[in-house]
Amino acid sequence: MRNPIITLTTDFGTSDHYVGVMKGVILRICPAARLVDLSHEVQAFEVTDGAFVISQAYRYFPKKTIHVVVVDPGVGTARRPLLMEAGGQYFIGPDNGVFSMVFTREKAKVREITSENFFLKPVSRTFHGRDVFAPAAAHLAKGATPAQFGKPVIDYLRMNLEHPPRTGKRTWTGLILKIDRFGNLITNLQSGDFPDLHLRPFEMQVGVQKISKIAQTFADEGFGEVFIIMGSSGYLEVVANQGSAARQLGCGTGAPVELSIY
Amino acid sequence: MRNPIITLTTDFGTSDHYVGVMKGVILRICPAARLVDLSHEVQAFEVTDGAFVISQAYRYFPKKTIHVVVVDPGVGTARRPLLMEAGGQYFIGPDNGVFSMVFTREKAKVREITSENFFLKPVSRTFHGRDVFAPAAAHLAKGATPAQFGKPVIDYLRMNLEHPPRTGKRTWTGLILKIDRFGNLITNLQSGDFPDLHLRPFEMQVGVQKISKIAQTFADEGFGEVFIIMGSSGYLEVVANQGSAARQLGCGTGAPVELSIY
Amino acid sequence: MRNPIITLTTDFGTSDHYVGVMKGVILRICPAARLVDLSHEVQAFEVTDGAFVISQAYRYFPKKTIHVVVVDPGVGTARRPLLMEAGGQYFIGPDNGVFSMVFTREKAKVREITSENFFLKPVSRTFHGRDVFAPAAAHLAKGATPAQFGKPVIDYLRMNLEHPPRTGKRTWTGLILKIDRFGNLITNLQSGDFPDLHLRPFEMQVGVQKISKIAQTFADEGFGEVFIIMGSSGYLEVVANQGSAARQLGCGTGAPVELSIY
Repeated sequence: MRNPIITLTTDFGTSDHYVGVMKGVILRICPAARLVDLSHEVQAFEVTDGAFVISQAYRYFPKKTIHVVVVDPGVGTARRPLLMEAGGQYFIGPDNGVFSMVFTREKAKVREITSENFFLKPVSRTFHGRDVFAPAAAHLAKGATPAQFGKPVIDYLRMNLEHPPRTGKRTWTGLILKIDRFGNLITNLQSGDFPDLHLRPFEMQVGVQKISKIAQTFADEGFGEVFIIMGSSGYLEVVANQGSAARQLGCGTGAPVELSIY
Repeated sequence: MRNPIITLTTDFGTSDHYVGVMKGVILRICPAARLVDLSHEVQAFEVTDGAFVISQAYRYFPKKTIHVVVVDPGVGTARRPLLMEAGGQYFIGPDNGVFSMVFTREKAKVREITSENFFLKPVSRTFHGRDVFAPAAAHLAKGATPAQFGKPVIDYLRMNLEHPPRTGKRTWTGLILKIDRFGNLITNLQSGDFPDLHLRPFEMQVGVQKISKIAQTFADEGFGEVFIIMGSSGYLEVVANQGSAARQLGCGTGAPVELSIY
Repeated sequence: MRNPIITLTTDFGTSDHYVGVMKGVILRICPAARLVDLSHEVQAFEVTDGAFVISQAYRYFPKKTIHVVVVDPGVGTARRPLLMEAGGQYFIGPDNGVFSMVFTREKAKVREITSENFFLKPVSRTFHGRDVFAPAAAHLAKGATPAQFGKPVIDYLRMNLEHPPRTGKRTWTGLILKIDRFGNLITNLQSGDFPDLHLRPFEMQVGVQKISKIAQTFADEGFGEVFIIMGSSGYLEVVANQGSAARQLGCGTGAPVELSIY
């Protein structure tokens, strides 16, 4: 690609210099790169949150896009830096499960990045976004081939974040994967697994609340009422019309969710 | 334009995947597009806040810029998607009044977007930023003509947010249009309507406070003192030197403001 | 450069129109410019915070990058607008010390911007980001030479933010320069000045706490424990593994730090 696209997803926030530093490193190595901020507000140290964000966003990008994901509580330890080809795109980030939800969707070829030629030296123990991941992405954008970065690995970390188990005859126990800005609770129960939910009596327990209404749009129910929708991300979501379901239910990320269909 | 500019203004925040998804959709359809983030921190569901931000920013952009505005509490309902030509630029967003303050300034040609060729299918009921507005902008950037998107409409929603009424012989009653990051209260009283305010005794009532000082710069008054300036946006603003007028007055967006000139 | 890079560092936040306006101004004057957001979340009015962010980020960017920094509590007063050449790059911003930490590192040629041809007129008293700094950067990007902007000055403001004094035989008294998103306290004590700190008994007093452990990575100590690292920015940092040292110590920016080496 003449002007390769490199997206950035981090938990660095935007009040510090970290994101700016990564952008500088990339542009110095590959001045033609086009930088696209996906999110720098992944919850600090929350690999699951990063896994969700990148897995939702990547699939809309053009082939050959390079996605850099730095949510890296283990920076400086033995966890490996990875370069992955999947779905015609590239992914660069730590081997800590942050690509788990991409692995669920795509056949992936994963390499450990070992070639130090692509690092910014000396490599610090605390900022691999700058010293490892950004320069690797820039060199890839500039034309290095994946094979130059290191050997394929198969024992990369992969967390099971989706398709929660059936815990009863007609009961599934999942969890809250993400609370979005609007206070919508995105569960890890996939809408596609319950295609006729709107046709049948059901109950979803979230915290101490039981919800048994499903609607098609936010505006279908009364102001502030809590109900289920088949969300745009492909999961069942607990939402409130122009209100925060999270605040009304007092629930956080990781809270269990139990769906019973009658 | 060889590398068309598409600006994004949303209330999506930056901790979720929504903005990244829209960027991906645009770049896949029109890889040459240049994305410019205006703001993703429009107050959630606040059409007036979005109306203010886009109306302030668009006028500085070059001709043919495409502005996508997604502040859309009615997503999934019958409210229409619009494509508008105004001031030599393009605007794409929901028909909910978010372009009201552009309509005040520019002669606009407004179309309802009905051509489903430009949508991402299936169109969800909850994320038209991804399925309708982003792809429409990308197709426009790629060369589709406005007429291909749909027929002109004239009954679009237009709110009266500016030029508040005179409520007494020498009294005008407006409101707080926006509180900016510094705690400055931007009223909807236009400076141009009161050009000699600094020459005459006046009083502005905001909450329980009465303000009768006007200054030219933030630094003209004492630290933390509250006074009026003719703000850079064209409106009278209630400000404090290096302090938050909003905090000192305890006022929020929409609060009434009464200006009396003697 | 065919597509000149202009970075933006401000304390404007991203919920207002200010950043979008600056981007529009730049792109209208120099449509080929490539905009890179460094940070818009510099603490409001905090020149020191801006000084830290730009000094950390600029050095990774390619030659000829133009950095616009608008942290400008004195906007509208007599403080001068500056254009500076340093390290092969350009810097544009107010003469209020925001470039102090660049001056420490680079030989700089500094000019006062006086040529009004490069301003957006009429120049407001409150938004020089739009009227002075953004248009100056765009004209520079478009090909104007530094000499066209104004005459060299040597009496620009330069604060002493680094290399704190030795206050005892084996004691140095510095301060907290920056608290980053993770709650790490970045001091202004340079790691390079204490290269053998990990080899000797020492004590760092921060607030009421005394810290005497140093580690190489965040993960080297127990969860939540507070210790020192030689940070990626070149300074000693007080950190906690996956926790906020700032919250644990109850310290803010500017708080004194005393290092004693035995």
